[in-house]
Amino acid sequence: MIQKYVYGNPFSTDAVTVQMEAAEGAPQFGQLCTDEGFCFTYEMGKEDIVYGLGEANRGINKRGFRYVSDCADDPNHTEDKNSLYAAHNFIIVAGKETFGMFFDYPSVITFDIGYTNLDKLKVSCAHADMNLYVITGETPYDIVKQFRKIIGRSFIPPKFAFGFGQSRWGYVTKDDFRTVAQKYHESRIPLDMIYMDIDYMQDYKDFTLNEENFQEFPAFVQEMKDQHIRLIPIIDAGVKVEEGYDIYEEGVANNYFCKRADGTDFVAAVWPGDTHFPDVLNKDARKWFGDHYSFLIDQGIEGFWNDMNEPAIFYSTEGMTEIKEMLKKFSEEGEKGVPMFHLMGKIMSMSNSHEDYKRFYHNVDGKMVCHEDVHNLFGYNMTRAAGEAFERLVPDKRILMFSRSSYVGMHRYGGIWTGDNKSWWSHLLLNLKMMPSLNMCGFLYTGADLGGFGADTTEDLVLRWLALGVFTPLMRNHAARGTREQECYQFDHIEDFRSVVETRYRLIPYLYSEFMKAALNNDLYFKPLSFVYPEDEIAVRVEDQLMLGDEIMIAPVYTQNAKGRYVYLPEEMMFVKFGRDGEITEKVLEKGLHYVEVALHEVPMFIRKGKCVPVVASAECVDDLDSTAPELIGYAGSEYTMYEDDGVHKDYENPKNYRVLRK
Amino acid sequence: MIQKYVYGNPFSTDAVTVQMEAAEGAPQFGQLCTDEGFCFTYEMGKEDIVYGLGEANRGINKRGFRYVSDCADDPNHTEDKNSLYAAHNFIIVAGKETFGMFFDYPSVITFDIGYTNLDKLKVSCAHADMNLYVITGETPYDIVKQFRKIIGRSFIPPKFAFGFGQSRWGYVTKDDFRTVAQKYHESRIPLDMIYMDIDYMQDYKDFTLNEENFQEFPAFVQEMKDQHIRLIPIIDAGVKVEEGYDIYEEGVANNYFCKRADGTDFVAAVWPGDTHFPDVLNKDARKWFGDHYSFLIDQGIEGFWNDMNEPAIFYSTEGMTEIKEMLKKFSEEGEKGVPMFHLMGKIMSMSNSHEDYKRFYHNVDGKMVCHEDVHNLFGYNMTRAAGEAFERLVPDKRILMFSRSSYVGMHRYGGIWTGDNKSWWSHLLLNLKMMPSLNMCGFLYTGADLGGFGADTTEDLVLRWLALGVFTPLMRNHAARGTREQECYQFDHIEDFRSVVETRYRLIPYLYSEFMKAALNNDLYFKPLSFVYPEDEIAVRVEDQLMLGDEIMIAPVYTQNAKGRYVYLPEEMMFVKFGRDGEITEKVLEKGLHYVEVALHEVPMFIRKGKCVPVVASAECVDDLDSTAPELIGYAGSEYTMYEDDGVHKDYENPKNYRVLRK
Repeated sequence: MIQKYVYGNPFSTDAVTVQMEAAEGAPQFGQLCTDEGFCFTYEMGKEDIVYGLGEANRGINKRGFRYVSDCADDPNHTEDKNSLYAAHNFIIVAGKETFGMFFDYPSVITFDIGYTNLDKLKVSCAHADMNLYVITGETPYDIVKQFRKIIGRSFIPPKFAFGFGQSRWGYVTKDDFRTVAQKYHESRIPLDMIYMDIDYMQDYKDFTLNEENFQEFPAFVQEMKDQHIRLIPIIDAGVKVEEGYDIYEEGVANNYFCKRADGTDFVAAVWPGDTHFPDVLNKDARKWFGDHYSFLIDQGIEGFWNDMNEPAIFYSTEGMTEIKEMLKKFSEEGEKGVPMFHLMGKIMSMSNSHEDYKRFYHNVDGKMVCHEDVHNLFGYNMTRAAGEAFERLVPDKRILMFSRSSYVGMHRYGGIWTGDNKSWWSHLLLNLKMMPSLNMCGFLYTGADLGGFGADTTEDLVLRWLALGVFTPLMRNHAARGTREQECYQFDHIEDFRSVVETRYRLIPYLYSEFMKAALNNDLYFKPLSFVYPEDEIAVRVEDQLMLGDEIMIAPVYTQNAKGRYVYLPEEMMFVKFGRDGEITEKVLEKGLHYVEVALHEVPMFIRKGKCVPVVASAECVDDLDSTAPELIGYAGSEYTMYEDDGVHKDYENPKNYRVLRK
Repeated sequence: MIQKYVYGNPFSTDAVTVQMEAAEGAPQFGQLCTDEGFCFTYEMGKEDIVYGLGEANRGINKRGFRYVSDCADDPNHTEDKNSLYAAHNFIIVAGKETFGMFFDYPSVITFDIGYTNLDKLKVSCAHADMNLYVITGETPYDIVKQFRKIIGRSFIPPKFAFGFGQSRWGYVTKDDFRTVAQKYHESRIPLDMIYMDIDYMQDYKDFTLNEENFQEFPAFVQEMKDQHIRLIPIIDAGVKVEEGYDIYEEGVANNYFCKRADGTDFVAAVWPGDTHFPDVLNKDARKWFGDHYSFLIDQGIEGFWNDMNEPAIFYSTEGMTEIKEMLKKFSEEGEKGVPMFHLMGKIMSMSNSHEDYKRFYHNVDGKMVCHEDVHNLFGYNMTRAAGEAFERLVPDKRILMFSRSSYVGMHRYGGIWTGDNKSWWSHLLLNLKMMPSLNMCGFLYTGADLGGFGADTTEDLVLRWLALGVFTPLMRNHAARGTREQECYQFDHIEDFRSVVETRYRLIPYLYSEFMKAALNNDLYFKPLSFVYPEDEIAVRVEDQLMLGDEIMIAPVYTQNAKGRYVYLPEEMMFVKFGRDGEITEKVLEKGLHYVEVALHEVPMFIRKGKCVPVVASAECVDDLDSTAPELIGYAGSEYTMYEDDGVHKDYENPKNYRVLRK
């Protein structure tokens, strides 16, 4: 059961798509106080587990830390970071009492989940203006499904988006892209997408193409498609301030940019230099910005990623003026004028500052709303701009879309990637831990930058991470300018990469089926073990294995120099390893604790007792996969219901999409 | 067997204390090239393990990363950091061939251990001036013992240093220290030491006391001793530039400070503002600086920690002049004059810069040696200054000493702590992984800042980390100014902290015995499992358990919200948990993989088959422990040889120090 409580004058976020009457009285759990801001407290049982928060730091069980929803462009996801790129304010307390809460609040909100006191949960924010949804149910899983039902169906990408993609901030010319396609082809490693990072644009201007490097773009898009490669360009939030640039001029003329209190357009420096932010909370501006995606769609593009949409601000004009004054004083008077630590602190906090969020406004139905009060909705609405536009521009066709920043509700318009992670083994594990939490909040099409975005990676880290990425709907290798090159063909043992990526393709019929079932039934693609084995005391605390769909459990290797790993089986399962050239080994392991060996070129998974999974031959791309007669691996006598459609259009409800396979 | 190879004109580091003839020819392993700088390459077997490098990042098995010996004051020990505070250039390759190598080279040297290519080891540095020691032996363990023999006996602290210590950068007044002592006393948690961070000094001047807060210091030292608390002050490397300050004036007058090429004293800004560095590579200056420790010894102090001795440089006068010029240009011309990223990069790299290392010189036996060429020897020689002075000042008495920066050789004069870590669960595990590597390089008295130095900790992290710290010779809780207070009494469940810290005291007779045996026999206190169970394929790759002495294995819990952990037993062992009020539970577990439950207040350990361990009643301090008749826990019929001495003097070789106990 879901009860909605309304406090003050909540901003309408459109996160929830179902109209609900507000309940009287107070939630039946914990204490709630709206005297000074909003504060909810709850005494947790010692054994209670807290789930949720979507793209947040740390564990599947969120206890023991303080999380702050405050979308931030921070690429250093160390353990102590309270805020990442998203605001997914849904939690479930499971234990002595079991309930879910969705705090529909568009600005900074803090979840102290046993940080200050081990057993105390405290959720607080500055203003008591909020829609609060309290969900009760038999189990956390049941609560998730109820929640998912009221926030609307998750984004469904085209089927090619289940292929493998290569990306790097640093591909500049057509030949750079051709080289990637060619090297993958020569290496006989499947590939479906190459991502275009910011350098494809002219001076980082949205909806432009570099004039020198991308003449005759439609022909180039087609050239790549002829090699079964889709190009997926990036779109950034900030629109460059430049006379003569159509988007800039239209935005200024129509008041479609975020404004200062004095009515002038707010200026934020980002990649292009000075930019204005499209006011995506303004319906008209959102439509206008979204329609511009047609510039690339009309040239044959079928997918996008939206970036820098927290929105990221390197510095504002106002912030820079303050810094310059301080620097002047320092250069004249030295540390006596401005202490060095103070100066450095000011410079370091110049980016993504709440001081700047206070400086600009959105026009929401004619009312000026300070950005700071709705900060967490920007990435959501930028992606919504695109998603709503796609419905108008190409209503029958699925367009790939994922975003960096997000809020609950954005899951209807796109997926997300988990942002600018690092080439750290700990981030491989963080990738795994984030997945079920994201699913709970509706984000099904998701994955991390495999191999790590920042810092220099190693061959074994990329291999192990890809072996997790085999199972994430978004499977993309991406890295930052200046770091070690990490395309699969850059390393010594290309054959190892081939066997890992081929495993992805062999499993796509299964992974796509499970994704579609999850999306169409408001269900989870990834689940914590506890959702399936709630009575198993060891399983409920496992943080390094996941259930995927109804058939399998995954347990990737995430430590360097390991020849395998420990894995806990809550029931008998079939341990499957995918090896070279289509080789598959199977071994039934009994319930309990095991050490399993996994070589660098292998992909391990576990099939649940009595289940089976379809496997096909690998191919160069998703379109070439032949799923007419999949091999079934797993337990004899089992059956599997496979979902298939054309992967392009939206005939989701057709019963013919389902096919029962028997082993 | 050890062979010494001499290349070029090596700088005499005094790391090795044994005179050895240089061998002819080339080492029998790998390829060595001295054409452009120095380069050693070796093709590793796929299964080879590489040990060593002392205080370095990442795993016990060092494969898969690039380590750079370049002592650096960098508090962000993320996985991608190549350099920490120390230079411990000893590695052991174990596998298809087994050998050790000590690269006795005092400046930057790079160990690419399967980073660029999975199976290639490459050790390289800029100058082919080096003493290279190549050690062959039956096993890695045997090689370590040979190496330890040639570098001299490890530092032995007084016995009180095996007690628990509390520290925080932020204790300022006598009352701050009294509060800590009192709160521990009231909480009935044992405590032997309180550390004095930089605020006890007057204006951060070495060998001074804050005039306002530490009047009548000897009486205060005694007051604390009467409560069985030793005060352990910090000493920093830089000597404040201040007319009238005796250390400064003596140093200037006698040319005891590091100098610029033009003969003026080099100025580096550190905590006191402008400082000069004592030229600890100059014998006379080293003696002079060391003698000043008497200032505090004469007032009753019995231990020190040496800090900022990489040496840390916030900025030099020259570096600041460059920055100011750039800032001036920026404040006048903006990004057109100086691009923002360039400016920020310059500011961020102003500290601990090789540009500065090039700017100053040491006087070594009359010869001017550029600091950059001997950078990694500074911390070593600062601590050597103290250690050599203690031998002169109080020859019969042991003085506690540990340092942040170090080089092999320094292990004879002091221990180390592992520097400014963070309140991260991953740093608990890093702490464990560093221990055996440090032992291999001679550093036995060592430990990490328990609970984490930087970032805000949590109650459970401090408890779990203390449960590892129970076993590290240096057991200190330390935290940075501005972070959450983390003394044991700051949390909700003080009784949990009591049971963990009391466990330390109950085990001190055992831990001290094993430490002394390791020190006196050039042996290891902590060993990787592979050193004891080389034939066990799982054991040799275990990176989260350690052997301690000859009797026990430790396996702390290092993940949040876990109720226990997986542990691998290479043979049958007795699983022991220390609980509240002296409670001990014992359970024999068979060889293999187990999940063991460990509550937050418990300390787990494993006794090897056929062994036993002495346990005593806890006490308020080390001096109060009664070890006349220890209880023996473990296997019936076993015996244990306990080492005991007065813990103060140096009568190490007395056979009466050994006592055989039988269970």
